[in-house]
This record gives sequence, C-alpha cells and structure tokens, in this order.
Amino acid sequence: MDYPINLPEVLAEVQAVFDRYEDALVNNRVAVLDELFWDSPHTLRYGGTENLYGFAEIQAFRAGRPAQGQQRQLLKTVITTYGHDFATANVEFLRDGSTRTGRQSQTWLRLPAGWRVVAAHVSLL
Amino acid sequence: MDYPINLPEVLAEVQAVFDRYEDALVNNRVAVLDELFWDSPHTLRYGGTENLYGFAEIQAFRAGRPAQGQQRQLLKTVITTYGHDFATANVEFLRDGSTRTGRQSQTWLRLPAGWRVVAAHVSLL
Repeated sequence: MDYPINLPEVLAEVQAVFDRYEDALVNNRVAVLDELFWDSPHTLRYGGTENLYGFAEIQAFRAGRPAQGQQRQLLKTVITTYGHDFATANVEFLRDGSTRTGRQSQTWLRLPAGWRVVAAHVSLL
Repeated sequence: MDYPINLPEVLAEVQAVFDRYEDALVNNRVAVLDELFWDSPHTLRYGGTENLYGFAEIQAFRAGRPAQGQQRQLLKTVITTYGHDFATANVEFLRDGSTRTGRQSQTWLRLPAGWRVVAAHVSLL
C-alpha cells in the first residue's frame, strides 16, 4: 500500500511507452496499437462513437479504422505513476481539421510482457 | 508484477466503494464525493463539459453542481481489480430525461485512508 507517485524511472518508462502508442496511433501502426493494449477479455475502450468490451472488439475496431487522417496535436499531457507498475495517462488533443478538444484517458499496468493499457476512454468536449 | 485479476475479496471492496460513490453522486452527497477522490494535485477528472486538474478544481466543481436532477440508471458496469490495490470501474449510464448513453471511467487506488479515485473521465456517446 505504499505507492510513491511519479518515481522518475517509472515515469520515464511510461512516458516512453505512451509516446510509442501516440506515434502508432497517428501513423496507424495497428500491430503496435494491438501490442500495447492488454490482450484480455477484461480490457475495454470507450471511444468517440463506440463502447468496446474485450481485446477482440478493440482489435476488430483498429483493423477497420481508416489508415489516413489520424493526425492530431497533443495540447496537454498528464502522466502519473503509482508505485512501480501502475499509471494513468490523460491528454487533451486536437484532431487535424477539428475545433473540438478531445480527451484520452488510459490506465496502464505493467505486465510481465511490458506496460499495457487495461482501460481507455476517448471523447470530445 | 504479479497482479491477480478480480480477487473476490478485492472486487467486493471496490464494488462497495463504487456503490457508495454512485449513491453519493445521484443524491449529491458532496462530502462523500470529495472523500472518495484522491486529495492530490495529480487527481484529474474529464467531465461532460469541463477538464478539471487537481483535487481543488474537482472540489470546486462539486460545490457548484446542481443538487437536484442527478438521477441516472446504470446500464452496464465493469469493475476490474489488478492485485490488491488497483482497480478500474467503467459504466454506461442513462441520465433521467436523456436519450444519450453516458460513459464513466474511474481508476481507483487503495491508499492508506481507503480506496480513492485518482482519475476519472465522463462523456456522452
């Protein structure tokens, strides 16, 4: 029950995997997006227009997503780590061509294979 | 790095605190809502129409919220626990008088004082 907040080495790890996810998202590297979500029926992702339950639904959604037009700017990023193995990453973003601020929330867990998103929520203000 | 998923005793604890939060929300028990959010500048809450950073902003938002008309139905609830001290709670809900499905995502951490929400995101589909 002792979870030091934002240990520098943990924060650096989560920042790195967060950056890798963001790069994969805007460049539609689906294999990386799939890799970084926990492969579990418990994983969920609430998106702009859909609620996805379980890794299989998330994977199917990624596969059907347009490969182009995913560029966005991050306006504000807050990553917080709790102890060594748990983190949240929250960003405000602006999609190219949009005027509505988006918000992306991710909960990350360090699993034996590496850091994985166990739950995510994306919406527009 | 060993986080058994949904240990029954942990799941029961989180379900209980989640239920307490839900009851406080629909009945506008602001003191309970404040109690159950982590009192930290790191806490954040993305809401339907606002992005709140830090406990002070969340507390001010609660204080200014209408006391009436907060009733809602939970349509689907998924609580997942990771080991003994981390959890996510995700729900789809319908506000009374609304036809748009809402989604509420919370990340919970067990602190010395008890389970607390460290990050939350609420939006309408």
